[in-house]
Amino acid sequence: MQRIKSKFDTFRQKTNIVIYGTNTASGRLFDLVLLGVILTSVIIVMLETVKGFDLKYHQELIVLEWIITIFFTLEYLLRIISINKPLKYIFSFYGVVDLIATLPMYLSLFFVGTSVLTIFRAFRLLRLFKILKHPQFSSQSVHLREALIASKGKILIFIYFMLISSIIIGSIMYVVEGKEGGFTSIPISIYWTIVTLTTVGYGDISPITPLGQAIASLVMIMGYGIIAVPTGIVSAEFANTNRKKALVQRVNPCSSCGTEGHESNAKYCFHCGTEL
Amino acid sequence: MQRIKSKFDTFRQKTNIVIYGTNTASGRLFDLVLLGVILTSVIIVMLETVKGFDLKYHQELIVLEWIITIFFTLEYLLRIISINKPLKYIFSFYGVVDLIATLPMYLSLFFVGTSVLTIFRAFRLLRLFKILKHPQFSSQSVHLREALIASKGKILIFIYFMLISSIIIGSIMYVVEGKEGGFTSIPISIYWTIVTLTTVGYGDISPITPLGQAIASLVMIMGYGIIAVPTGIVSAEFANTNRKKALVQRVNPCSSCGTEGHESNAKYCFHCGTEL
Amino acid sequence: MQRIKSKFDTFRQKTNIVIYGTNTASGRLFDLVLLGVILTSVIIVMLETVKGFDLKYHQELIVLEWIITIFFTLEYLLRIISINKPLKYIFSFYGVVDLIATLPMYLSLFFVGTSVLTIFRAFRLLRLFKILKHPQFSSQSVHLREALIASKGKILIFIYFMLISSIIIGSIMYVVEGKEGGFTSIPISIYWTIVTLTTVGYGDISPITPLGQAIASLVMIMGYGIIAVPTGIVSAEFANTNRKKALVQRVNPCSSCGTEGHESNAKYCFHCGTEL
Amino acid sequence: MQRIKSKFDTFRQKTNIVIYGTNTASGRLFDLVLLGVILTSVIIVMLETVKGFDLKYHQELIVLEWIITIFFTLEYLLRIISINKPLKYIFSFYGVVDLIATLPMYLSLFFVGTSVLTIFRAFRLLRLFKILKHPQFSSQSVHLREALIASKGKILIFIYFMLISSIIIGSIMYVVEGKEGGFTSIPISIYWTIVTLTTVGYGDISPITPLGQAIASLVMIMGYGIIAVPTGIVSAEFANTNRKKALVQRVNPCSSCGTEGHESNAKYCFHCGTEL
Repeated sequence: MQRIKSKFDTFRQKTNIVIYGTNTASGRLFDLVLLGVILTSVIIVMLETVKGFDLKYHQELIVLEWIITIFFTLEYLLRIISINKPLKYIFSFYGVVDLIATLPMYLSLFFVGTSVLTIFRAFRLLRLFKILKHPQFSSQSVHLREALIASKGKILIFIYFMLISSIIIGSIMYVVEGKEGGFTSIPISIYWTIVTLTTVGYGDISPITPLGQAIASLVMIMGYGIIAVPTGIVSAEFANTNRKKALVQRVNPCSSCGTEGHESNAKYCFHCGTEL
Repeated sequence: MQRIKSKFDTFRQKTNIVIYGTNTASGRLFDLVLLGVILTSVIIVMLETVKGFDLKYHQELIVLEWIITIFFTLEYLLRIISINKPLKYIFSFYGVVDLIATLPMYLSLFFVGTSVLTIFRAFRLLRLFKILKHPQFSSQSVHLREALIASKGKILIFIYFMLISSIIIGSIMYVVEGKEGGFTSIPISIYWTIVTLTTVGYGDISPITPLGQAIASLVMIMGYGIIAVPTGIVSAEFANTNRKKALVQRVNPCSSCGTEGHESNAKYCFHCGTEL
Repeated sequence: MQRIKSKFDTFRQKTNIVIYGTNTASGRLFDLVLLGVILTSVIIVMLETVKGFDLKYHQELIVLEWIITIFFTLEYLLRIISINKPLKYIFSFYGVVDLIATLPMYLSLFFVGTSVLTIFRAFRLLRLFKILKHPQFSSQSVHLREALIASKGKILIFIYFMLISSIIIGSIMYVVEGKEGGFTSIPISIYWTIVTLTTVGYGDISPITPLGQAIASLVMIMGYGIIAVPTGIVSAEFANTNRKKALVQRVNPCSSCGTEGHESNAKYCFHCGTEL
Repeated sequence: MQRIKSKFDTFRQKTNIVIYGTNTASGRLFDLVLLGVILTSVIIVMLETVKGFDLKYHQELIVLEWIITIFFTLEYLLRIISINKPLKYIFSFYGVVDLIATLPMYLSLFFVGTSVLTIFRAFRLLRLFKILKHPQFSSQSVHLREALIASKGKILIFIYFMLISSIIIGSIMYVVEGKEGGFTSIPISIYWTIVTLTTVGYGDISPITPLGQAIASLVMIMGYGIIAVPTGIVSAEFANTNRKKALVQRVNPCSSCGTEGHESNAKYCFHCGTEL
């Protein structure tokens, strides 16, 4: 009994290293295989929705679906077994996503039409962001994230401003344009305003009265101009983080206390006062 | 009589604190409730314009409208009573908006079709910008506003340039394309030019002659290129305000030799070695 | 005879001051009136092309046209008379534009349909840019122009790159999509590529084959990404000119030789070596 | 025999200088002629696809095609003869492109319909980028390239992020919208997502359900906001390369005390007063 438990513990440890480790060769190989299978599973789900393709290769797709489902099930069980706090994983975002990815095929045995749920498997793609922790990308993505976090507050204010503007402009356009141009209700008008402000411009709804077109022109110029705001915010933050990095690199260490970061024209260490 | 007046004064003061105050608990609660009611009222107006929904819940929506109208009326009266200079409020932008928000339902008792005016209630949404004065956002929104004000002049010149270009290009396209492609008049052609220059591109009007398409291509590349101008302006201003803030934080003069620009964690002047 | 010549000379000088001067009250007034008349003339030409409006007020518009034509003719003659080198003006860009603005109505007396030429009057709008020389805007517009001139070279390279890419991508799409999706010839495909690359997206032509849509997706992402290039260029130049201005403002003049622009931590004038 | 070989060697050397040289007058002339012929050949291919034009001038276009084909064939043969490592050229990208540009017309003698391959001649346009090595543009294009290379890593991460988001959003929209709005399969939905995220917005596919329009609005605001990311990255890099260039120009150390950072017009060290 004792021996079985110890064997199981060894197995758990090894599995943990393979599944959760990123520094060992086997851990990296597992990550790579997993990403490959996730990508394959997403491509299969995509192809199933393409009618011509599904009619031709329906049987093959189903077989592949089952192979992937079994792989995901095994992976899910091993994740639960090998982790120290299984409950924490099960109720985490990734835990729920991993579970949902396995369910649809089993459900399809009992209910009709549940295979559509395989689409939620797309969320497993989020695991692909793990690649950004790879040493080759990490410094870059840390830099990216820092700049985005620093500009988060201003961007939220900007979106808040845009939403309120959209409601007001949408209401005005509903009154001005009326139903002929496709502005059948205020929510639709707000949708149109967002389509226009963001310069997407589908053209499924477009103003036909002169006044409506005049207002639309103003909205477009406004949208064209205010795109400068988020761009300016993020640009400035990127420049900022760049500068900070540059400052840190101007190390200039003090020979006495080792403090770094002296200005190039400093004569005394700003920390201990020794002449540099 | 005196006592009633003094009681009324106390009531006025208390109301004033609740309605106009932002630093007291009751003031903040009132702001929150008001914003909630405004949002609700706007959503109701929106839903009324959605045909399917209005047919089903017409009665309920009318009742809610009346409740909100009475709330807004009370709020309007209390605002007038509790403020020191009521006339200034009544004729201010917000005063007019607040009045207009209450009128439509009363008018609908006497006239048919005036309930469409409830749409103007959307302007009350502007009060939602008050949230930006909240300490959590204020430093960010001040920063935003400063950068925008600093770039205002250049952006106006830019819009001026864009409008004149639109008129000239629109006139040319009217001659080149003629009525078949939808360029039925110069104002319409100018509308098309703005749609194209801002890269919105509805596609309701689009050139069909080779020459028209060639000119359109030039306009698009121009629009694509000159979006860089407002963006560049705002970016530079944001970077500028960032730098200024950084400079202010770095002044830190030495008490002995007056050298400025010490790092915030500096203990000794980097120029003369005196302890800061 | 002598007296008449001298009187004419005085008249010429006065006219010159009114028409070409910008520092005198009468010069400024003339500029303002001229801009107003130009704007009016352009609006009239616009309204003539709006069918409903033209049918109603045809007679009035013709009368206004004649008034403006006579004003422009007088202005043109006075400009020639009062300038020192009339030929230089006549064959300058503005000279030709000013002449063309007067001709259409006279021609319409002899030929039918020439009144369409009044559209070229729109070019007179370019005179509205004169406003940018007004002291209130001039520093801003100089700043704008400097940044644009500094980034001109890079933007030309960028447009060159975009045009060649458009030809290559357009040729590929012509082969891939064929005539069904609207890609009826290579020039049309190139037009589509520009519409897509610049994120305008009319939708008059859009790919319908899977391969075409895949290539289109790549083109869109490319267009979305490379808009960063002109924007980045101009942003950097604006930041640059801002920084230069900031440097100049850190004046710190030398008490001995008056040289400005010393760093804040400079101890000696970099020009004459005097201690600051 | 010896003499013929020596003559041939001289011919090879001369040809090499003309074709591959860029510093001699004949080399530059050849480049110019070649660029002209390439442009002409591309324009001819374009015109052939314009039906109306092709019907009228079919014979003339064919003759021109043959002239250009012979020119390209000669050029190709001379390139092989005059270069030292002909195999390296033959299997290089430009070598293959140059070959493909000559083949279609010869093939059209034996097979019907191969003249469509002339389109691949468009790739020869890539040789037009050689112009960027011209001294007038080279410093600018080096600057451009440096900034783009520096931001490559972050832009790749950004595109990676956009692609994964597109797949997830596309899958959701496929479920939400269904086939009526045109979302007939997941790949099509992903195509729509890219069209929307990049703010192109053809309008060939657009959501019609309220929920779909709400999600679409979010996608648009997201796309409008995240365009700031590549722009910000490139802007910051441009500013960075600008600053580096500025820093390099400012080093200028003092020969006596070693202080760096003197203005280019400084005559005395601002720190010790020694003449520079």
